[in-house]
Amino acid sequence: MTPKTPPHQLQLNEHGQLRHFLTTEGLSTELLTEILDTAESFVSVGKQAVKKVPLLRGKTVVNLFFEASTRTRTTFELAAKRLSADVLNIDISTSATSKGESLMDMLWNLEAMDSDMFVVRHQASGAPHFIAEHVTPSVAVINAGDGRHAHPTQAMLDMYTIRRHKGDFAKLNVAIVGDVLHSRVARSQVHALRGLNVGEVRVIGPKTLIPADFEGLGAKIYYDMAKGLKDVDVVIMLRLQKERMQSALLPSESEFYRLYGLTMEKLAFAKPDAIIMHPGPINRGVEIESAVADCSRSVILQQVNYGIAVRMAVLSMAMSGQTEVAAQEGGV
Amino acid sequence: MTPKTPPHQLQLNEHGQLRHFLTTEGLSTELLTEILDTAESFVSVGKQAVKKVPLLRGKTVVNLFFEASTRTRTTFELAAKRLSADVLNIDISTSATSKGESLMDMLWNLEAMDSDMFVVRHQASGAPHFIAEHVTPSVAVINAGDGRHAHPTQAMLDMYTIRRHKGDFAKLNVAIVGDVLHSRVARSQVHALRGLNVGEVRVIGPKTLIPADFEGLGAKIYYDMAKGLKDVDVVIMLRLQKERMQSALLPSESEFYRLYGLTMEKLAFAKPDAIIMHPGPINRGVEIESAVADCSRSVILQQVNYGIAVRMAVLSMAMSGQTEVAAQEGGV
Amino acid sequence: MTPKTPPHQLQLNEHGQLRHFLTTEGLSTELLTEILDTAESFVSVGKQAVKKVPLLRGKTVVNLFFEASTRTRTTFELAAKRLSADVLNIDISTSATSKGESLMDMLWNLEAMDSDMFVVRHQASGAPHFIAEHVTPSVAVINAGDGRHAHPTQAMLDMYTIRRHKGDFAKLNVAIVGDVLHSRVARSQVHALRGLNVGEVRVIGPKTLIPADFEGLGAKIYYDMAKGLKDVDVVIMLRLQKERMQSALLPSESEFYRLYGLTMEKLAFAKPDAIIMHPGPINRGVEIESAVADCSRSVILQQVNYGIAVRMAVLSMAMSGQTEVAAQEGGV
Repeated sequence: MTPKTPPHQLQLNEHGQLRHFLTTEGLSTELLTEILDTAESFVSVGKQAVKKVPLLRGKTVVNLFFEASTRTRTTFELAAKRLSADVLNIDISTSATSKGESLMDMLWNLEAMDSDMFVVRHQASGAPHFIAEHVTPSVAVINAGDGRHAHPTQAMLDMYTIRRHKGDFAKLNVAIVGDVLHSRVARSQVHALRGLNVGEVRVIGPKTLIPADFEGLGAKIYYDMAKGLKDVDVVIMLRLQKERMQSALLPSESEFYRLYGLTMEKLAFAKPDAIIMHPGPINRGVEIESAVADCSRSVILQQVNYGIAVRMAVLSMAMSGQTEVAAQEGGV
Repeated sequence: MTPKTPPHQLQLNEHGQLRHFLTTEGLSTELLTEILDTAESFVSVGKQAVKKVPLLRGKTVVNLFFEASTRTRTTFELAAKRLSADVLNIDISTSATSKGESLMDMLWNLEAMDSDMFVVRHQASGAPHFIAEHVTPSVAVINAGDGRHAHPTQAMLDMYTIRRHKGDFAKLNVAIVGDVLHSRVARSQVHALRGLNVGEVRVIGPKTLIPADFEGLGAKIYYDMAKGLKDVDVVIMLRLQKERMQSALLPSESEFYRLYGLTMEKLAFAKPDAIIMHPGPINRGVEIESAVADCSRSVILQQVNYGIAVRMAVLSMAMSGQTEVAAQEGGV
Repeated sequence: MTPKTPPHQLQLNEHGQLRHFLTTEGLSTELLTEILDTAESFVSVGKQAVKKVPLLRGKTVVNLFFEASTRTRTTFELAAKRLSADVLNIDISTSATSKGESLMDMLWNLEAMDSDMFVVRHQASGAPHFIAEHVTPSVAVINAGDGRHAHPTQAMLDMYTIRRHKGDFAKLNVAIVGDVLHSRVARSQVHALRGLNVGEVRVIGPKTLIPADFEGLGAKIYYDMAKGLKDVDVVIMLRLQKERMQSALLPSESEFYRLYGLTMEKLAFAKPDAIIMHPGPINRGVEIESAVADCSRSVILQQVNYGIAVRMAVLSMAMSGQTEVAAQEGGV
């Protein structure tokens, strides 16, 4: 699955509107800001007595999960339902592929059912991109996490959280801490932060867990928490992929916690009003101390809350951008 | 999970309205009657051409099943959908907890998604109570069965069935028969029957399967069907938990059936117009004879029918009681 | 499960309207045509901005799958949702029956919840028929595939595809090719084609994979592709049930492909404008060459598209026919 079309070209229609949402890489400041502004209007929907708007009424959204993730699937399902869409959950690991059908045959079938949107989670990097390249123009593709590549809606909810709690990106130092190597969200965060012209992005972790190319993305690399957290406004902790720690990449879990686990003590290096973020699910005592996760400066649960609104924004924007494409090219 | 707040205090708001529904214990006659009266109005919804009312439109109801139960989950899903709610089914045994997330972190996440109600099924007694103690005020918790402790919506649909078919509780003798020890519903039934001032509650079964404290709850204990069923108006059979009968609690399944299985012969001890009830699924020939289950005095399928209406009543009442609380305390 | 009532009697109400949909056998030309005409009106629904019509609003449709089939379940779920019904998915292999409940007890329970329709998939031939014989008059039963017996909605979407692409049935020669023995759809196709007065129906395959009774159904049997495909207007390929090919029925998969696989070369025997159909999922290189599956004369994906519309037609017609019955006989 080696994509041919550059993503920034693939995911926008000719008017520069979002049509698919595959990556935060290459998106303009204007478009990133439009996503955040659109999400703003949806945050209040979750507080209404009737948490629904009719924007996607009568649309068919297919959650196409090649890798199980109850948490992510749930947030997309809720976002789609609050937009009044009809939602189909398809768990691929237990279904069609067992009959030996090819990926493309399965997608063509779902297209033929007049589906409007595929929300794709896949263990292989690039899979949503590949799918977006091959689907009919009337279907929008949303990346719900692919391999170690990207998790763009998670990155955008992080951006929303930062803007809401700390304001102007240009004045902020943001640190991303931990197992960057195995994270699909770190890369998406760096692209989004750079696209929003953040003051400074830092990446902190052990050498073995920071990929070589992160400096090229515009992030400063730190191997030491004291130096890396100095004067930051935002600390984004990454989940330690414990299942992968049997490898030789790290001496031990406790050693990792001692050096990079976010404790109250290490948090003192950051600005006194720095906020703490985490994409969840958190490993208490592995990459973050419970006292930090639960303190008043932690905005971890607010992230979850904004996550529904940001996904509603992305779904409705992509549906609208793709409808325009379909109208011009003619759908199936 | 040892609860701190007494349930009768926890499940009511300051105006005495239902806010969570955890147990039938300690509920006033007025409130129990209000549930039955509310259910009355919903029974007819199932007979309409459009089986829907808009009471929970735009609300998010999460079926949080830590223990699989297709039957119970289906009844709550239907009840919520007929109230026009958006329903999320989360089967915990196969999901989030596999990533090592704590129960509370998972609940906080679901809260943060602006969920309105958790319908909780759990193998541990007290789990829904524990959850109700810790959720944010804007979320209502409904107990869909916890360990051997309680199954209050099942008990209330039984009460509805009794009232509908036999009228005034004060004039009735009700017998609960069988494996009381392993039943989560028997305890809820006794509390509800006592709360509704039933004439007499009897519990019938072998000594090994009747917990010592049932006499204290206001039930008369019988070890003999002939004596226990004499002059009763209602016979509630319990399901024999066959998977647990390998234990030393009973000599054999056939011996149990000989002594306590409800046959036409034993039914003759009861009043001629006594009705027969069972929470289902029934074990034909284990605790009940097929001829009894299918006879005209059996109201087992009516129980299922009323069950949807009773759950609609409980869901809508708790949502309304909790909305009042949330309005005062301020939600998330 | 040996049915007592003849299906053509069981599936129609006294006004000759569809009430259950169990088989295409014995249906009149008028009724078959009515299904196709009704589907016609639903094809456009899938192209609308709001893909929904309110015909089944407030109805409860239960997908009762005793055999897993994500593809078929998805098409029925979508059809029901686009008709605005509430849909319950029940996967029996993992649920109720594990508690030892009998099939009938389970069905009676679902009836008692005021369900309106059961969409039944079962590995045993005759199961949907058996269920239709025993359900309460207010419930309609739709056969979503039973054993090797029938798959009537698949056959009707095939008929719709043929009419849409080739017009008048009387002028057409239609060939059904491949593993007829293990196919549930071949029998339904022959009945439907005969009911619609097709010019000629041919069945092509190895002797071991064509049941003896197909000639009696009005089909001409061919063991040779060159002769069988001569002058046909429509080629319907069947899926080779690979999992069953370990048996002694065929020498090898490659031998089967050599003799009966639809290649461009063999397709040349048919009329130059013959269309190619397949119920999916296709086995590329097993019963059909990729070039054939993807050529301009292949209407395989159109079949999927029409499938939603045809299922919407069958669901709405059966609901309407059964409502009339229920009104007369009185429901539960």
